[in-house]
Amino acid sequence: MEMITLNEKMLGIMKTKPAYGAELVEVDVPNPKEGEVLIKVLATSICGTDLHIYEWNEWAQSRIKPPQIMGHEVAGEVVEVGPGVHNLKIGDYISAETHIVCGECYQCRTGNYHVCQNTKIFGVDSDGVFAEYAIVPAQNAWKNPKNIPPEYATLQEPLGNAVDTVLAGSVASKTVLITGAGPLGLLGITVAKASGASLVIVSEPSEFRRNLAKKVGADVVINPMEEDVVREVKDLTNGNGVDVFLEFSGAPRALEQGLQAVTPAGRVSLLGLFPKEVTFDINNLVIFKALEIHGITGRHLWQTWYTVSNLLKSGKLNLDPVITHKYKGFDKFEEAFELMRAGKTGKVVFIP
Amino acid sequence: MEMITLNEKMLGIMKTKPAYGAELVEVDVPNPKEGEVLIKVLATSICGTDLHIYEWNEWAQSRIKPPQIMGHEVAGEVVEVGPGVHNLKIGDYISAETHIVCGECYQCRTGNYHVCQNTKIFGVDSDGVFAEYAIVPAQNAWKNPKNIPPEYATLQEPLGNAVDTVLAGSVASKTVLITGAGPLGLLGITVAKASGASLVIVSEPSEFRRNLAKKVGADVVINPMEEDVVREVKDLTNGNGVDVFLEFSGAPRALEQGLQAVTPAGRVSLLGLFPKEVTFDINNLVIFKALEIHGITGRHLWQTWYTVSNLLKSGKLNLDPVITHKYKGFDKFEEAFELMRAGKTGKVVFIP
Amino acid sequence: MEMITLNEKMLGIMKTKPAYGAELVEVDVPNPKEGEVLIKVLATSICGTDLHIYEWNEWAQSRIKPPQIMGHEVAGEVVEVGPGVHNLKIGDYISAETHIVCGECYQCRTGNYHVCQNTKIFGVDSDGVFAEYAIVPAQNAWKNPKNIPPEYATLQEPLGNAVDTVLAGSVASKTVLITGAGPLGLLGITVAKASGASLVIVSEPSEFRRNLAKKVGADVVINPMEEDVVREVKDLTNGNGVDVFLEFSGAPRALEQGLQAVTPAGRVSLLGLFPKEVTFDINNLVIFKALEIHGITGRHLWQTWYTVSNLLKSGKLNLDPVITHKYKGFDKFEEAFELMRAGKTGKVVFIP
Amino acid sequence: MEMITLNEKMLGIMKTKPAYGAELVEVDVPNPKEGEVLIKVLATSICGTDLHIYEWNEWAQSRIKPPQIMGHEVAGEVVEVGPGVHNLKIGDYISAETHIVCGECYQCRTGNYHVCQNTKIFGVDSDGVFAEYAIVPAQNAWKNPKNIPPEYATLQEPLGNAVDTVLAGSVASKTVLITGAGPLGLLGITVAKASGASLVIVSEPSEFRRNLAKKVGADVVINPMEEDVVREVKDLTNGNGVDVFLEFSGAPRALEQGLQAVTPAGRVSLLGLFPKEVTFDINNLVIFKALEIHGITGRHLWQTWYTVSNLLKSGKLNLDPVITHKYKGFDKFEEAFELMRAGKTGKVVFIP
Repeated sequence: MEMITLNEKMLGIMKTKPAYGAELVEVDVPNPKEGEVLIKVLATSICGTDLHIYEWNEWAQSRIKPPQIMGHEVAGEVVEVGPGVHNLKIGDYISAETHIVCGECYQCRTGNYHVCQNTKIFGVDSDGVFAEYAIVPAQNAWKNPKNIPPEYATLQEPLGNAVDTVLAGSVASKTVLITGAGPLGLLGITVAKASGASLVIVSEPSEFRRNLAKKVGADVVINPMEEDVVREVKDLTNGNGVDVFLEFSGAPRALEQGLQAVTPAGRVSLLGLFPKEVTFDINNLVIFKALEIHGITGRHLWQTWYTVSNLLKSGKLNLDPVITHKYKGFDKFEEAFELMRAGKTGKVVFIP
Repeated sequence: MEMITLNEKMLGIMKTKPAYGAELVEVDVPNPKEGEVLIKVLATSICGTDLHIYEWNEWAQSRIKPPQIMGHEVAGEVVEVGPGVHNLKIGDYISAETHIVCGECYQCRTGNYHVCQNTKIFGVDSDGVFAEYAIVPAQNAWKNPKNIPPEYATLQEPLGNAVDTVLAGSVASKTVLITGAGPLGLLGITVAKASGASLVIVSEPSEFRRNLAKKVGADVVINPMEEDVVREVKDLTNGNGVDVFLEFSGAPRALEQGLQAVTPAGRVSLLGLFPKEVTFDINNLVIFKALEIHGITGRHLWQTWYTVSNLLKSGKLNLDPVITHKYKGFDKFEEAFELMRAGKTGKVVFIP
Repeated sequence: MEMITLNEKMLGIMKTKPAYGAELVEVDVPNPKEGEVLIKVLATSICGTDLHIYEWNEWAQSRIKPPQIMGHEVAGEVVEVGPGVHNLKIGDYISAETHIVCGECYQCRTGNYHVCQNTKIFGVDSDGVFAEYAIVPAQNAWKNPKNIPPEYATLQEPLGNAVDTVLAGSVASKTVLITGAGPLGLLGITVAKASGASLVIVSEPSEFRRNLAKKVGADVVINPMEEDVVREVKDLTNGNGVDVFLEFSGAPRALEQGLQAVTPAGRVSLLGLFPKEVTFDINNLVIFKALEIHGITGRHLWQTWYTVSNLLKSGKLNLDPVITHKYKGFDKFEEAFELMRAGKTGKVVFIP
Repeated sequence: MEMITLNEKMLGIMKTKPAYGAELVEVDVPNPKEGEVLIKVLATSICGTDLHIYEWNEWAQSRIKPPQIMGHEVAGEVVEVGPGVHNLKIGDYISAETHIVCGECYQCRTGNYHVCQNTKIFGVDSDGVFAEYAIVPAQNAWKNPKNIPPEYATLQEPLGNAVDTVLAGSVASKTVLITGAGPLGLLGITVAKASGASLVIVSEPSEFRRNLAKKVGADVVINPMEEDVVREVKDLTNGNGVDVFLEFSGAPRALEQGLQAVTPAGRVSLLGLFPKEVTFDINNLVIFKALEIHGITGRHLWQTWYTVSNLLKSGKLNLDPVITHKYKGFDKFEEAFELMRAGKTGKVVFIP
């Protein structure tokens, strides 16, 4: 193993002030405290949450306290180990779960860490990983096998969301409708195909994203602005509708169409966040159809990480078409964020 | 067994014309056709659906074709057996599943008869059971043990809805919020208690119904017009919220309060029908809470009937307080419907 | 569609007498009775049960009443429709569920038709499909899409067993041990891979079958006569053992090794039938490991058929290496049975 | 709250040497170390494991290192808090999970702490709680509500085993066979009834225990030495057999009878440990019946504790008949162990 020489200074993308945008700054490499490790960042990727912080939307204004290094999706190598850490050592190649959970609330004690009542999120509530080095709480580390490239390993956190969305029930042999082929929807497509879905139909208004969806493995793509999604889905499923509806878009119209297109007694996962309250015909679209609906947030600790890791190791995931942009260094971070804002990306990865 | 002499004429509550109300009429006792049996009605009870037909609301106007005998909840004795019926004989004491299913659609072939794509409902799409005699399709008959009184046996159909609502997941040892203590909500209370719920909290604006809820077995009743439902529930559950939220009211405010009051990763069943489209904060109330929501309609054939029957036989259900009105004969049917309209009843039973 | 001219006589493999073997005979083409259809057999395949009948083992002696046409796995075209059949018409391309169920017992009424208390099996309790024409009860017919070749369509019945074994729980992303790579085990391998298993390890003593297992998609094959199965499995799974153990062999030693090799709280499916009572350390291998074990028999009607059909249509199954022998006509049936007895086949298909 | 004055010496039941029996000794009150608390024991109860240690059976000889204080079921009050403990304070009223888990193995990270690969058990692998004071690892503490009497609170640990056995699936409305009415079987009876079982049949050869079973709530008790268990069960269940079979006895004959008596596609939980390897007809009793079998060990952390605690708080459990012997002080411990050995007890509780 090559010897890593630690710098004293590092570059990082920082939310410097409460306004649109961010800055590339040089700051001190931090020191790991009790229960923490310092990693050299090998790859990091942009999440929709990062975009909200960049854009400084309402949610970001209420939650984020600049100045702060952004970012939370990461793969890196442990270069320094803080006191009291015994499960990690220098040289370990890790990714990180973003939710720092309390371990003591009702949810944590009953295996639902993903909805811990006292969750903190790093990169949101503390400095993140869009930098050359970053601090990771040891309890949040996930050890990667050496043969997973960093650009895949950094995707495990969002892959976890996709896995929880797709695999909230079985998809083996089933027909699936995915609404929304943004970065998470694209990951959902490959997870669904890798998990045995027999037919994956994707509804997505953007042509760019529909093309990505096809490359990633969608069997059929539909443009909901021009085609009748419900009729198309029925035509593709002997008139029955799909067994499973996975909502990744956060578009009220997609929600409604999906609920119409799913077969009675079918299963629904909701991941996409909606711009505001939604209005819909819950009698006909949920109750009379006897649907089973799952709200999806975070990732099951640590079952979901095992699932993601196994899928990655098995080579079943088709991630290359998802990673549309890979930047060496952070220099062009503004281009990256603006492309993502414009819906012109899949996942964007930085190799620091 | 006493010999039953068949009359040639019978009394029945008939929707005679497309307008508010119904009439007590004398009509010919019908003859069972291929696959049907004729029963002497021993008890029959009013469902909310019957009330809609009586009131001649929008739904009824679109679905019902007068003249037609109303009613579908029933217990009776087989007095004549039509051709081709081999699973029933004269003297059998039966109740009846209301949904006549096709057996051939995707839902029927995968065990989801309750959402058969071609369901017909007797008492809705054909003559019903508010009469001295009634026709029942043999495939819809459920044989009762002789020791279940007819006034309980007629409640098995709505008990099926309550069972599917309560037992869409386990309630053993769990804390439960029920919104709405109308007839079905009351049945839900006793099913939840009988199935091991450790704490059943009921939110219901009507004092009359709250009192019934207490008698049936609710541990705590809340008046949502005067108390803060969410805070009360949290106070009763160590701040965690209830494990299970069962919506029987069809009130948008109850839906919202229940979604707030259920613990993250909790389970929700929706049975109550809403007066129109609902609007709510699906991000915070469903997605970020990782809820599991089940739309409930009909009853699983025939698993739910076994469940109901076993609960009845075990003596665990507390039905007497639910049956607030028991009429000998149909003479006072208008009083019965008006009391029910006014929310002044639990279940109303006729003994013809 | 080409016009089919019905012969009056047909060839069929008949168990003519209570002894080892069978005979190729010419018999009258049968006429469909009430509720039945006559099919022209397009493909039929040998099941282990047929082999038992051929060998005239203890079970066969107690159950089979010669003379009788053998066989039950089939794909064919409807050429004549009996009275009272309304869901099938001449020209339909069908396969058939083998279990004729009563529809009225506790199991049938609760969605467990596969363990109907009054099951009859055609080809076992009545004439079967190793013939140019065959009778199929209409309620047992499964309509195939035209583009599935008959040699695949006939495999749907045993594929159903494999599906129920593999998908008694999720396998998406999971590690799986399969013991026994006979015809059903081979189908299990491709079903497991198609359903997202990340690692499929197969233990099988026969080199011929291990080679087939590799061709079908096994990630690793182990010879249990020469290698330490438990240690190999642990080595391949970070010391944890496999998530899922699927027993297809009926070998007591394989059962024991599999129970040792599966991870605590893992899942087990048992399909293979054992030559006699088994003896094992249930404390350490089941109870202390908190295993979940499923006995597998038949196929869920009709959920499993949808699953199989969807997997077939999606092109995810790798069936060609499983079909090691394809015979035009029945002439060489004795060779076929003897090869199968010797363990020198995957699935054997006849094209009449 | 009364001030508790700590003694310097305490009485405790100690396994002093590698031979049959134990001694009541006076030893120093221990000091809590990092992550531990000291409790004043308010109630403690005898488990079958303690009996094995007392009897010095084969398992005990291989696992226990005398001298050691025995016992692990407990309720007590925290009287001293070791360094690094922040979730407990003096005066807390606690019980304790017995399994000390690693938190880092595959099972722990996927919510299966009850089968942690590195489990240690206190009272087995370290000093236990049959004493006036005892050390409890803080991470193993469960806070009790003040209104649960200590003699019930100490039963939560074995109640956890009973809950996991009964509630490995739903029992609401279902028919249940319990084989073995020893202390755990008795707890199983009351848990099953409290969780909605409609019919609980108990097979138990000891008249003393059958009488206890009746008092605890069994609907029917059967003496398997004199009656035909399978026929009785069938007669009580319309010929179908029970939905759920719960094995608490560890008797091979009971296992066989239960597997025969459970309905096809039914559910089985195995808790009782068998004296040696078992031999049974797995084809006919498991595979052809399509049973679902769960091995039960330990308790799910911490879901099961919530379940037990809620059942206790709801007053649904009938524990008084289970606690057949309650001793003030440890003086008569030998009588207690000998009675238990002779099968003449339910649960035995010491109030130090």
